[in-house]
Amino acid sequence: MRIFKTAQEMSVFSRKTRRDGKSIGLVPTMGCLHEGHLSLVKSSLGSSELTVVSIFVNPAQFGKNEDFDKYPRNLEKDIALLKDSGVDVVFAPEAVEMYPEGFLTFVEPQGGLEEVLEGEIRPGHFRGVATVVAKLFNITDPDKAFFGQKDAQQCLIIKKMAQDLNFSVEILIMPTVRETDGLAKSSRNSYLSAKERKAAPAIFKALQMAQHMIELGENNPAAVTAEIRKMIGRAKLLDLEYAVVADPETLRPVESIGSRALALIAARVGTTRLIDNMLIER
Amino acid sequence: MRIFKTAQEMSVFSRKTRRDGKSIGLVPTMGCLHEGHLSLVKSSLGSSELTVVSIFVNPAQFGKNEDFDKYPRNLEKDIALLKDSGVDVVFAPEAVEMYPEGFLTFVEPQGGLEEVLEGEIRPGHFRGVATVVAKLFNITDPDKAFFGQKDAQQCLIIKKMAQDLNFSVEILIMPTVRETDGLAKSSRNSYLSAKERKAAPAIFKALQMAQHMIELGENNPAAVTAEIRKMIGRAKLLDLEYAVVADPETLRPVESIGSRALALIAARVGTTRLIDNMLIER
Repeated sequence: MRIFKTAQEMSVFSRKTRRDGKSIGLVPTMGCLHEGHLSLVKSSLGSSELTVVSIFVNPAQFGKNEDFDKYPRNLEKDIALLKDSGVDVVFAPEAVEMYPEGFLTFVEPQGGLEEVLEGEIRPGHFRGVATVVAKLFNITDPDKAFFGQKDAQQCLIIKKMAQDLNFSVEILIMPTVRETDGLAKSSRNSYLSAKERKAAPAIFKALQMAQHMIELGENNPAAVTAEIRKMIGRAKLLDLEYAVVADPETLRPVESIGSRALALIAARVGTTRLIDNMLIER
Repeated sequence: MRIFKTAQEMSVFSRKTRRDGKSIGLVPTMGCLHEGHLSLVKSSLGSSELTVVSIFVNPAQFGKNEDFDKYPRNLEKDIALLKDSGVDVVFAPEAVEMYPEGFLTFVEPQGGLEEVLEGEIRPGHFRGVATVVAKLFNITDPDKAFFGQKDAQQCLIIKKMAQDLNFSVEILIMPTVRETDGLAKSSRNSYLSAKERKAAPAIFKALQMAQHMIELGENNPAAVTAEIRKMIGRAKLLDLEYAVVADPETLRPVESIGSRALALIAARVGTTRLIDNMLIER
């Protein structure tokens, strides 16, 4: 397995790989890898001739009062895991390599998706995401790039960005990987105390309840979100930020639930912010 | 010569070209080609195995009250010229192909170069430029891209954009091509009446004068711009918008002229807006 630290080396290598006629799969991560990431890696290994995993905690997507400094980092362990998985290349640049002094060009999603939910709570977050993903696409020149459904809004914004800016990369969204009790795998789960960890699956249980209500015929999104509120309210240590039944493409709240809806929840568990979502079809 | 109208066809063709190991030179234009463009074409033909010329009047870089509608278009003549020049591929999309309904991702230069001169007078102009050039880079996958020094600020912003977003393309800036009386070649020169056309070279003459003053030892930019103002003021039909002696990298006005300075002028000739500049070294 090769490890590149500079954009220049990574770029030269990916261009050479493409010239040699090999396809490249990219799995962009912020490290502290869990089974969710590894499922993306597996998908890439199964469909691309060369798999690049990027590990970069992207400062541009963290707000000033967010957890950039304490975000979990464990590069050595990540590298060992990826080596075991059969990954070909790890791209692990430093922040100053990706955002050198004088950096000033951003990729800005505008006029829709980035305004709601995570975008409303985390201003500038999706600008940071779109910018770093555009950079990673240019550096690694992938045929395919793999993202997890847990970050549903991020997936939609990246798909739109790739389409709008004509990146010739296929964006593949993989299902959320969960713990046995339903909690979505997330690097941020490591922040949770034992008690918080025990309480956190209430988010998934609320999504399951929403799914059951809708499958049983509930068409009123307000009725569904009211039940989610109650359920999260009953769970100790959880503090709901939002619960919404939205259009799966626009993420705008629906007035009446149709054949496909996306239920999204964000909640604080102690000081940790967790998000999850479920696509509900009937 | 091949002509592509869709990003999809162009993209497939350029990927195939790169896979075949051939280098691609891109000359982005808004059409209505003149000798300035053809000098870029010649540079590309001389240094790349395949030359793509894009012809696209980019709505995103025109302000609401600017000349998008009347901007000169002459696709048939352009195509004939390019065919004669030996160009391999013309990419000539419609506006709806580049900006389909729901387009919402822009590339935004921020925090510097885009704020001054043209950026101050034409808000959003460089956002439009950076966005379309990023799109063209992704669609045509060039090794090299050629731009004219006449649009000095555009050149700097595109270089910065390519660097910040890690496009693996070399940006080459070619000298301004001029009429025999010194007027910089520009598609907008076609707007000029005979009288205006006769008056317009005063812009170049003012730049030459600035050059002579500086070469003779003038260090005070205010003294130089005062003389430019006088000279443009004396020329009938000309209305100065800005005249500045700037740092060639940051485009900020210099306090004292050093070994390299960029003199930039924008002026209206009747209703036509013309820009020009000269790099002065001593």
